[in-house]
Amino acid sequence: MTLINTVSQKLSSMVKKSGKARVIISNVSPQIEEGTFPAKSVIDESVIIAADIFSDGHDVLYAEVLIKHDKDRRWQAARMEHLGNDKWEVAVPMEKTGFYKFKLQAWIDHFTTWQLGLQKKHAAGQDIALELKIGAELVEKAMGKAASKDKAQLKKLAAVLKSEDVNNALEIAMSHELASLMHNNADTSNATLYPKVLTIEAERKKAGFSSWYEFFPRSAAVTPGKHGTFKDAEKLLPRVAEMGFDVLYFPPIHPIGESKRKGRNNALEAGPDDPGSPWAIGSKHGGHKAIHPELGSLKDFKSLVKAADSQGIEIALDIAYQCAPDHPYVKEHPQWFKWRPDGSVQYAENPPKKYEDILPINFESEDWENLWEELKSVLDYWIAQGVSIFRIDNPHTKAFPFWEWAIASIREKHPEILFLAEAFTRPRLMERLAKVGFNQSYTYFTWRNTSEELIEYMEELTQTDSRYIFRPNFWPNTPDILPPHLTYGGENAHILRVLLAGTLSSNYGIYGPVYEFGINTPHPSKEEYIDNEKYELKHWDWGKETRIKEIITMLNKIRKDNPALQTTWNFVRGYSSNENLLCFGKYDKASGNTIIVAANLDPYHTQQGMVSFPVEKLGLSSNFTIKDLLSGDTYEWHAGDNYVALNPYDMPMHIFEVIK
Amino acid sequence: MTLINTVSQKLSSMVKKSGKARVIISNVSPQIEEGTFPAKSVIDESVIIAADIFSDGHDVLYAEVLIKHDKDRRWQAARMEHLGNDKWEVAVPMEKTGFYKFKLQAWIDHFTTWQLGLQKKHAAGQDIALELKIGAELVEKAMGKAASKDKAQLKKLAAVLKSEDVNNALEIAMSHELASLMHNNADTSNATLYPKVLTIEAERKKAGFSSWYEFFPRSAAVTPGKHGTFKDAEKLLPRVAEMGFDVLYFPPIHPIGESKRKGRNNALEAGPDDPGSPWAIGSKHGGHKAIHPELGSLKDFKSLVKAADSQGIEIALDIAYQCAPDHPYVKEHPQWFKWRPDGSVQYAENPPKKYEDILPINFESEDWENLWEELKSVLDYWIAQGVSIFRIDNPHTKAFPFWEWAIASIREKHPEILFLAEAFTRPRLMERLAKVGFNQSYTYFTWRNTSEELIEYMEELTQTDSRYIFRPNFWPNTPDILPPHLTYGGENAHILRVLLAGTLSSNYGIYGPVYEFGINTPHPSKEEYIDNEKYELKHWDWGKETRIKEIITMLNKIRKDNPALQTTWNFVRGYSSNENLLCFGKYDKASGNTIIVAANLDPYHTQQGMVSFPVEKLGLSSNFTIKDLLSGDTYEWHAGDNYVALNPYDMPMHIFEVIK
Repeated sequence: MTLINTVSQKLSSMVKKSGKARVIISNVSPQIEEGTFPAKSVIDESVIIAADIFSDGHDVLYAEVLIKHDKDRRWQAARMEHLGNDKWEVAVPMEKTGFYKFKLQAWIDHFTTWQLGLQKKHAAGQDIALELKIGAELVEKAMGKAASKDKAQLKKLAAVLKSEDVNNALEIAMSHELASLMHNNADTSNATLYPKVLTIEAERKKAGFSSWYEFFPRSAAVTPGKHGTFKDAEKLLPRVAEMGFDVLYFPPIHPIGESKRKGRNNALEAGPDDPGSPWAIGSKHGGHKAIHPELGSLKDFKSLVKAADSQGIEIALDIAYQCAPDHPYVKEHPQWFKWRPDGSVQYAENPPKKYEDILPINFESEDWENLWEELKSVLDYWIAQGVSIFRIDNPHTKAFPFWEWAIASIREKHPEILFLAEAFTRPRLMERLAKVGFNQSYTYFTWRNTSEELIEYMEELTQTDSRYIFRPNFWPNTPDILPPHLTYGGENAHILRVLLAGTLSSNYGIYGPVYEFGINTPHPSKEEYIDNEKYELKHWDWGKETRIKEIITMLNKIRKDNPALQTTWNFVRGYSSNENLLCFGKYDKASGNTIIVAANLDPYHTQQGMVSFPVEKLGLSSNFTIKDLLSGDTYEWHAGDNYVALNPYDMPMHIFEVIK
Repeated sequence: MTLINTVSQKLSSMVKKSGKARVIISNVSPQIEEGTFPAKSVIDESVIIAADIFSDGHDVLYAEVLIKHDKDRRWQAARMEHLGNDKWEVAVPMEKTGFYKFKLQAWIDHFTTWQLGLQKKHAAGQDIALELKIGAELVEKAMGKAASKDKAQLKKLAAVLKSEDVNNALEIAMSHELASLMHNNADTSNATLYPKVLTIEAERKKAGFSSWYEFFPRSAAVTPGKHGTFKDAEKLLPRVAEMGFDVLYFPPIHPIGESKRKGRNNALEAGPDDPGSPWAIGSKHGGHKAIHPELGSLKDFKSLVKAADSQGIEIALDIAYQCAPDHPYVKEHPQWFKWRPDGSVQYAENPPKKYEDILPINFESEDWENLWEELKSVLDYWIAQGVSIFRIDNPHTKAFPFWEWAIASIREKHPEILFLAEAFTRPRLMERLAKVGFNQSYTYFTWRNTSEELIEYMEELTQTDSRYIFRPNFWPNTPDILPPHLTYGGENAHILRVLLAGTLSSNYGIYGPVYEFGINTPHPSKEEYIDNEKYELKHWDWGKETRIKEIITMLNKIRKDNPALQTTWNFVRGYSSNENLLCFGKYDKASGNTIIVAANLDPYHTQQGMVSFPVEKLGLSSNFTIKDLLSGDTYEWHAGDNYVALNPYDMPMHIFEVIK
């Protein structure tokens, strides 16, 4: 069909160009939406580029990837390997952040085809004199385009192939020297070039390995009843750093709407002292570029960002593109909202539910260009204040084309900026957000409990094309979600779920300090915390030590020490005779680091059984020594079944490092 | 990434155009090689067009396919249905042969969104007065672009919505009349149009339903030892028609090479009376446009084609693009071959094997344009003589770009021409031939024997995207292949395999009369017939009746009578307690015809067991009456397990028609 319109009595110029190119290149991977979006990777990862490559007949092919970083001038060639059944691949290392372009080309390798034929004919005792002369012709043909040094050598070798001394000629024919010269001077005039140039984005390390901690800065005050400030929050940085987190994420820090403000437990009317929800953004004090006055000044915020940086922590800001009724935008840009016949602005709703404290932005506004620019300028503003990570609130309720443009525009200037998509929604929407540029995504992990559910989800995330776009960030809880297993499983479940999050996924996070304090009283009618911090100030005993906190600290240290836990893509499922035991492994080939995990998913009872792991995929020999990084105990294990018993009151998980 | 290059300080015109289009259309199917090739169908089939379609937020969407036959002027709209999880689809009927183009568009359906919200608010007892006014605004907005008749009616209904009579307004709001008017005048200015126009080819019926019979016309003579002719073959047409076949396929009918001719059983030297292989094409008598003198004249051939046509049979010619050493091309177009240093032409080889009677064509010839034109002219020549079906010999050893061009060029003028690809090779090559235009393909069926193998293969063929390109044609034997199960299983296996071929696949064929005669003596070292007809004249007793022949005749009648057997795509696997029992069903919704098959794959022993079928997929109720179309026996069956026992000496298969 590509050709049908170009065919007349004589062949068209388009066909003419490719008529002798016999090789087909198809099914190239990674390739997101046919090349519309880049495949994701992080620096120092190797990306496997694969394709179906074949030709008519039985000739030997040569295939290569040509790859180049956007900032480089030259394309580098990487030879592809034939894995069988016409599947070819090569692993290319991502050496610096930014965008890599790649293309593929392949051609018939006539010289190697001849070499293999010669070898088989000789082995079968056939006369090879004529074959050697055919080879000499190939070599002489290659001389045509060769540089003078190669030309002289090719001439010499062609002469040997044509000589009467068949044994000597055969030796030269099969020599590495000749093969190498012939490859360097290969005739690629009939090569097939894959018609698309595809893109891989190599992001900074933290895109793929990060440990998030969320707290409300307004609850950071030492004195009960006092509104916490950035200065108070700054004093908590050592606590966050000691626990081993490297991203500290705050709910929105902007002025909170006063009109239609929600009270405690989402009450429709706020009391006079109710601070309101930080997600109801904007008041007379300003909008998305302003700071809630009670938190402090911009100077305080910048000081906090700087102090965090010195302790290895990045501050992540929550950006929620929605407005309280008293947000300045409403008066300044009424065209960005939907207006009702009674002169009021349309608030958010999911009929019959109403969210009168929130006005959604109308992405179908006729003035959408100014709207887009203004929304992006919010990100630019905070980037200028030192913010490098954004957690975007409900991005799936804002138009996808906006994100595609905004993220690409920002990353063009600031490739280090990371975006986490807070979208707990349908699979296709979450996938699209990842495609249009979000670096990390919240996931369904929060509701995956059984070993079957967890394994299926992990394999979907890591062993399908999803892995080139959707980078999971596992959260056992959030201010919006207190899942039932944390309510019913108590401390044991809190320990289990954070250990699962931090070992299954290289990106994970918790909302604290409720998590490490084991607070788990639910709202009577929702899977949410009662007396939710979203609607009130809390006073926490930040100095309190708990078992959960101690184990989180161990977990983060284990993650830092073990490269195998610093990527999600190396997940390998294990097998157990007991469905309450989840087992999996992770292997980092470069460092040789292997981690094996066995977890008891039952927070109430000891579970025991046999577990086994695919030793080959995990770089293991048939006998190996493992050390539990949580307990310090060592064991001798072997390929096949090994016995495990886990008492959840003791520790719900083994995290074994393979030590030899 | 699509946008990154277009972004400057102000948004580019490209973004401008799509900025308000909030709907995303993705993962559109069928789509072959990203739309490079058409998806295949046959006339009267319905093709399911599917896509992922979604938007931000919770608005209701409207999605439609626009489809148009190449010869038509107007696009027809087909409303897509939302199946859930953002998957949408619609079945579009193929009403005439040729190429259909289709595209997709979708938009936010603001009216329906409002309608549903109104309904929910009303149900929750909320005040809907303001809501009704919002609806009136939507209706008034729609008036803007409406035709005058619609405009007047919309105005009237808007007035009702705005009136004080809320009950009346509500009734109008929810009315079909308003919904229909609003749909007809929907605002699609923010619609998303999928950027590609895709193609479906609707082929003639025989592309999807055909019964092939192959014989060597040179073995058609009545007198032993005499070379058969087209006239002899013409006399055999009633036999072919009575057996129920509708395609009669001949091995190549061209002059057979004399130089390096092969003798009986592929002997390197032919005896003086050896006729040679018909696949060694070309001699002093001509090449691919000539007829082997001993078969008769062009006039005889045309007479045969005409006689066949009058009996419902089409003649399929074998086209093998290769030359005997004395083919006229070698002298006339030496540039189309590879020449060796000793002045000889390179013959075909697969080292260390040599095929000295065959010269392959060099598709890397500098003169490839004239070569392509000449090769295509061979097809054009035989089309002009009345041939409408070609069985192409080893197409995977000729360049794929040639086929892509040649088949598209021919089908542009002659959409009725069918091509069967004789490629028993690796999956990607067979798939590519189907993509570039072959209508039917030989398959791995010949070597699939167990129920597991057969079911897996059938599901791969029918329940993956393969079904839109690769149309299988099942052959139990060919002149090149006598599979071991026919050798060992004798008559029982011959009956079983032809029944399987003709019920699993709507396209099938046999090489006769060896098949119906049950001839099965193998070559001692190959899975091929001894004293192969490829290298010698045979004298057959064409009048001989056999049980195999009788059953083939029944099979072809059953296929003609039952629409469910006239497509391959409706295959539904069944389940059996005995792995020797293969069971499956086929259902034709349009006619209500259901066929259920149970086969004993063991040619030696009676096998019995329980079998069950997915009744819903087969249009069955919980109790149904079936009639075995081979034995005439009827049974009462039910959803769930039913008992079957099959004695292969009696009949290895039940072909049940569901009669009520």
